[in-house]
Amino acid sequence: MAQNIYDDPGFFAGYAQLPRSRQGLDGAPEWPALRAQLPPMVGLRVVDLGCGYGWFCRWAREQGAATVLGLDLSERMLDQARNTTGDPAIDYRQADLEQLELPPGAFDLAYSSLAFHYIENLPRLLRQVHAALVPGGRLVFSIEHPIFMAPSNPGWVIDDQGRRTWPLDAYQTEGRRSTDWLADGVIKYHRTLGTLLNALIGIGFQLAHLEEWGPSDAEVEAQPALAEERERPMMLLVSAHRPA
Amino acid sequence: MAQNIYDDPGFFAGYAQLPRSRQGLDGAPEWPALRAQLPPMVGLRVVDLGCGYGWFCRWAREQGAATVLGLDLSERMLDQARNTTGDPAIDYRQADLEQLELPPGAFDLAYSSLAFHYIENLPRLLRQVHAALVPGGRLVFSIEHPIFMAPSNPGWVIDDQGRRTWPLDAYQTEGRRSTDWLADGVIKYHRTLGTLLNALIGIGFQLAHLEEWGPSDAEVEAQPALAEERERPMMLLVSAHRPA
Repeated sequence: MAQNIYDDPGFFAGYAQLPRSRQGLDGAPEWPALRAQLPPMVGLRVVDLGCGYGWFCRWAREQGAATVLGLDLSERMLDQARNTTGDPAIDYRQADLEQLELPPGAFDLAYSSLAFHYIENLPRLLRQVHAALVPGGRLVFSIEHPIFMAPSNPGWVIDDQGRRTWPLDAYQTEGRRSTDWLADGVIKYHRTLGTLLNALIGIGFQLAHLEEWGPSDAEVEAQPALAEERERPMMLLVSAHRPA
Repeated sequence: MAQNIYDDPGFFAGYAQLPRSRQGLDGAPEWPALRAQLPPMVGLRVVDLGCGYGWFCRWAREQGAATVLGLDLSERMLDQARNTTGDPAIDYRQADLEQLELPPGAFDLAYSSLAFHYIENLPRLLRQVHAALVPGGRLVFSIEHPIFMAPSNPGWVIDDQGRRTWPLDAYQTEGRRSTDWLADGVIKYHRTLGTLLNALIGIGFQLAHLEEWGPSDAEVEAQPALAEERERPMMLLVSAHRPA
C-alpha cells in the first residue's frame, strides 16, 4: 500500500497552507498549462486520480462534465472534499492507487495532478487507466519532473557569484527517494523520463503533448519567486490518448 | 548555413582521435541501444543525416539496405567516407541540414547520430524528413540531451566529499550555446525535451521509443570511465515513425 503521508498531521497542516490548497486550481502556477491540454468537459465521464480537496472535480463539473469520480488515499482530504459540495454527480471515494481496480471503458478522461510520483508500481496503474478509458479517451497528468526527483541532495546550490544551479546526480538510478517536504521521510519514486514515456507507449497510449513546465517571462514578472523555476523543470505535464 | 566546425583543422584532428571515429560504431557506447531501435535493414532505402566518416552507411549496407544516402556538411569527412568504399549503392553527398531538400516519399529509414543539436531550425529539417519518409517509415536519431546542453557552465562539480553533480541551470532558456569541445566556440542549440518531442508530434510523427542513454552496470564494470554517465544523461535516443 502507498505511504499515506497526507494523513500525517504535520504534513496535512503544512499542505493545507499551500496556495494550491487554499486557492485551488488558480493557486497552482502550472494549472493554465495543464488546462490547455484538457478537452472540452461537456458530457465527459471523468476520473481524478489523487483528487485531494476535490478542486479539479468541482471545476470539471462546472465546465459540464457528466460525472466525476474523485479518488484519494486520504480520508481526511476526502472529508474536506465532500464538505464542499452536495453535487450528486461527483463521487469521492477512498482508494489506494497502488491497488486500484477501475471498470473497463468507463471514462472519457483520466486526470491526475502531482500524484503519480508517489506510486511505486506506476505501470500497473497506467494499464488500469488505459483499460478504463474508452477508445479515443484521454489521460492528462502532472508529475514531479525526473530532474527534480533524481538528486541525492535535491536543493539549490548557490555559488560565490550568486548563481543558482540544481545539483543533478543519480539520474539513471531509478527507485525510491525519501525527502523532507512538509514532513520527514516523504517517499517518492524516481523514474527517468524515458522510462515513463516508454511505459505509456508500451501500454498502448499515444503521446499527444509533453510539457516541462516553467514560468513565462510574464509569470516571473508577476511572481518573482518563480524565477528559479526557469533554471530546471520541477513538473512534467503529459497528455496522451487511447487510440480510437 | 550551419557552422562547419568539422572542417576546423583543430576540431577535425581532435575528432579523428575519438573512439567513435577510430573504431566506428563499436566505439560509441550508445550504439547497442540505438541499434536496438533500428528495423531490419534488408531492402530499405536509408538516409543518414550527418554521416561523418560513413560508418553507419556502410553498416546499413552490410545489413542489406538497398541504398544509402549519406549527407554531411563537411567535405573533408565525406572525402574520408568515399575513400573507404566503392559500393555504388552508397551515395555520399555534401549538404547543409539547415537548407536540406529531400525528395518526398523516397526513404524507409532516416537516421542521424549526434547531429541535430547543431541545427538551429530543427523543425524545418524534421518536416523535410517526415515528407521524405514513406508512410510507415522510421526516424531513429540520437541528440545531445537537453540536460547536457542547457547549463551555463557544462562541467562536473566535485564537492568536498568527492561527490559528482551536474550543475543544471538555464533549462528553460532555449537557443544558442557556445561550448569549447575540441575547438573553441562550437555552436549548438538547446531545446527542452518537451519542445523536441512536441515538434515531432506536431509534424505528424508518432513516438515509438525514447531513451536517455546511460551505461548499464556491466558496461561501467567493463569501462569504469563511463560511471559518471549514470549521474546525468548525455544523450537522448529517439525512435518515431510516420504513421502508415
